Amino acid sequence: MDIDSTAQDKARFFAGAWGRVKALPGKLKAKVTSTAKSIKRLGQDDPRRLTHSLKVGLALTLVSLLYYARPIYDGFGVSGMWAVLTVVVVFEFTVGGTLSKSLNRGFATFLAGALGLGADYFASLFGKNGEPIVLGILVFLLAAAATFSRFFPRIKARYDYGVLIFILTFSLVAVSGYRVNELVVLAHQRLSTIIMGGATCMLISIFVCPVWAGEDLHKAIASNLEKLATYLEGFGGVYFQSSESDGMGTGKSFPQGYKSILNSKSNEESLANFARWEPGHGRFRLRHPWKHYLKIGALARQCAYQIEAINGCIGSDHIQGSEEFKGKIEGSCTRMSAECGKTLKALARSMKTMTDPYSSANTHVENSKAAMKDLKFALKAASLENADLAAILPAATVGSILVEIVKCVEKISEAVHELSQLAHFEKETVEPTVSPEKRPQLLHRGIIQPVLDGDSTANDNVVITIHEIISTDSPENEKACDQHQVPKPGKKIEAL
Amino acid sequence: MDIDSTAQDKARFFAGAWGRVKALPGKLKAKVTSTAKSIKRLGQDDPRRLTHSLKVGLALTLVSLLYYARPIYDGFGVSGMWAVLTVVVVFEFTVGGTLSKSLNRGFATFLAGALGLGADYFASLFGKNGEPIVLGILVFLLAAAATFSRFFPRIKARYDYGVLIFILTFSLVAVSGYRVNELVVLAHQRLSTIIMGGATCMLISIFVCPVWAGEDLHKAIASNLEKLATYLEGFGGVYFQSSESDGMGTGKSFPQGYKSILNSKSNEESLANFARWEPGHGRFRLRHPWKHYLKIGALARQCAYQIEAINGCIGSDHIQGSEEFKGKIEGSCTRMSAECGKTLKALARSMKTMTDPYSSANTHVENSKAAMKDLKFALKAASLENADLAAILPAATVGSILVEIVKCVEKISEAVHELSQLAHFEKETVEPTVSPEKRPQLLHRGIIQPVLDGDSTANDNVVITIHEIISTDSPENEKACDQHQVPKPGKKIEAL
Repeated sequence: MDIDSTAQDKARFFAGAWGRVKALPGKLKAKVTSTAKSIKRLGQDDPRRLTHSLKVGLALTLVSLLYYARPIYDGFGVSGMWAVLTVVVVFEFTVGGTLSKSLNRGFATFLAGALGLGADYFASLFGKNGEPIVLGILVFLLAAAATFSRFFPRIKARYDYGVLIFILTFSLVAVSGYRVNELVVLAHQRLSTIIMGGATCMLISIFVCPVWAGEDLHKAIASNLEKLATYLEGFGGVYFQSSESDGMGTGKSFPQGYKSILNSKSNEESLANFARWEPGHGRFRLRHPWKHYLKIGALARQCAYQIEAINGCIGSDHIQGSEEFKGKIEGSCTRMSAECGKTLKALARSMKTMTDPYSSANTHVENSKAAMKDLKFALKAASLENADLAAILPAATVGSILVEIVKCVEKISEAVHELSQLAHFEKETVEPTVSPEKRPQLLHRGIIQPVLDGDSTANDNVVITIHEIISTDSPENEKACDQHQVPKPGKKIEAL
Repeated sequence: MDIDSTAQDKARFFAGAWGRVKALPGKLKAKVTSTAKSIKRLGQDDPRRLTHSLKVGLALTLVSLLYYARPIYDGFGVSGMWAVLTVVVVFEFTVGGTLSKSLNRGFATFLAGALGLGADYFASLFGKNGEPIVLGILVFLLAAAATFSRFFPRIKARYDYGVLIFILTFSLVAVSGYRVNELVVLAHQRLSTIIMGGATCMLISIFVCPVWAGEDLHKAIASNLEKLATYLEGFGGVYFQSSESDGMGTGKSFPQGYKSILNSKSNEESLANFARWEPGHGRFRLRHPWKHYLKIGALARQCAYQIEAINGCIGSDHIQGSEEFKGKIEGSCTRMSAECGKTLKALARSMKTMTDPYSSANTHVENSKAAMKDLKFALKAASLENADLAAILPAATVGSILVEIVKCVEKISEAVHELSQLAHFEKETVEPTVSPEKRPQLLHRGIIQPVLDGDSTANDNVVITIHEIISTDSPENEKACDQHQVPKPGKKIEAL
């Protein structure tokens, strides 16, 4: 019995093991396939990643072969290795990153090398016994002071790598144990190889499929505005339609793209830092106002926080609010969010084309403000005698936050306009400032004169002669404009 | 005349220049003073920065002197330099950062060195002419592939530095031009010096005033909860009091500490990444659930977004809302925010003391939910016949967002409770679960018996004998608890 069960256990064990061995190729295949897929996706998401990898390979191969080639190798000695080292640590994804690191490395090496020579000379005055003690104290003091300086936010942001290399080079030179005249030769060799490595990186990163941090920042901010616009343009439709059927069950949902904006700060800041190192490129001049992008980015985040609050309110809207009340504010709320969306779309477009957004965006800003006023009237007019405030509240809160979003979008519009002036965006070609949304409100008083006489091919055409155009711009609207100290839409054509 | 004016110009110029020269020491002094002040502030903000700087100085001096000392220098050759290099680039502020970089560097050097030797051997098979071509191709392929792998988020987060060092070492070894048997000696020397440098860093960072990334993360999350609590606890008082006088002009203002939470994501993520490399320390075991902290951090950010939305509403509250309506919801809103604040305070305290927050926080969560119900009743009861919805809206929106905050705080409470289970926090000592806020609601039926007879020193004392305590816990409250499937406060003592 006992032997039998042991035998059975063994048989089971081997069967299990064999099963696992048989399953191994399948599992391996699945693993390889999934890895291959994720590699492919990574490349497709941003093909520049692939280009960057090939560029690093190219730079490294070039420098390595120079180092490998005997004549240069003999000339530079072991220092040739520093060229390889420089390429590996200095080559960054963006041109700005590469330039920042290369220049930091170059200057820091030069400065620290000179200081190290001085320290060596100074220490040698103390004789053979005193020298290591003096050198040790100097290295300690300098390393501690330089490390502490890395905590200053401004140094951290722009010169962190330079300080690191400064400490490194100073220590290496100071304690190298060579005599000063030997050191000068060594320092010269090392500096020239570092310059060689850095120059290779800079040239390849600038001239072979360059990735400009500035351009990336510009595009990232514009795309953030677009993400906000996508949410706001669709918002009214989804929110108010869904409530008409069975609460959010219409299949339509809110685009969640804006969520990536919530945590965009660190990325934007590092791009802006790198952008400042870049030379003029494409449509960006050398002293492009990169810092101003951070202001727009912060406002966009502010807007995203408000949207997040709206999303929270909607998500918890279990208690179906009063449909009657929702219907009353639907028009103005939908218009508010749609006009905000259009403003942001216009701003994003104007950033992309680098034209002044003034006229195109301002009309939508004014429209959204008018809708805000309408909402206030609707709220004032809403008869609340039979209504239950608890039922009204969810929709009212959405309206209230939309009012905040309108204000935020106005600030974004002003910031983009400021940017367009600082960066000398092109003036827009003069367009009619009356937005398409307002056109239906225009009263046409004209004569429709069918063309029947003469030309036989044009017999389907109708000539419309418009004698007078009366805008329905109410005094109410003008007052709203004055209150907010924004030029009225009508004045804009003159300003252009 | 002409000469006269030229002389006058000259005199003016020199006077100006002299003035500037005279002002120079003052300016210089001001500059030095302001720099000194900012250095002092930087050190006072976090004294560990100073300690860190001294630690780096110490590590570097130790390694440098080893390198400087002839016997070791002769033993290691130029490779000794690698120890200095390792210390400079590997020493990070936190223990986790230093360990992560040291281990990455060690393993990457070992692996890449072995692969480089293999590549050298493989290339040598192709003869003197083929060798550089084969080596070039190998370096190109490996560098490109490794660089691409750095774009994988998981590799980026944990092994970025390792991959960098891998590329570096492989290129250096592969193209060094030495013969294989020479290379083995060189690789051995280099690896041992790197280990020496890395070990120095690790030992100093662990044993000299260690800064643990894990502990920092733990404290950062707890302090974020506290910042939210500070805002919420003070909110009701400031918001409702200010409206009673002349709109926000009471001198009291909302604490803005929560704003730092909005952009805390990247910092928390890097701390969590470093924490995973750290050995057990203090009250944290080796496999402490660091990832779970990110979940709590995300929920805290969610709560901060809601507060930001409230702040937006308050800031734009030009149109003074209906005071009557505000008065109606004041009680429940103040209670909601205060109880949320107390919950968060209790959670932060329980994190700091590493005790299970269940009983202390849960009571406040239940209280805040009860206040939420009260708000709904208040809204239902508010007579709206004479009210203007536009005037009501600002206060109503604040109430509505507070409801969202209550929900968010409940989630935070659950997440901290989960953490306390995952991390085996101590059970709390049994405390009365009736919160102090509920005590005034207790009805005391007792006899107040002045102590007049006998003791002359105690003649001011009064003995109160309480015969019976009747709690006013209403069935309504119990129902609320059941609905949310959270154990009733009364049941908690048994659970402990």
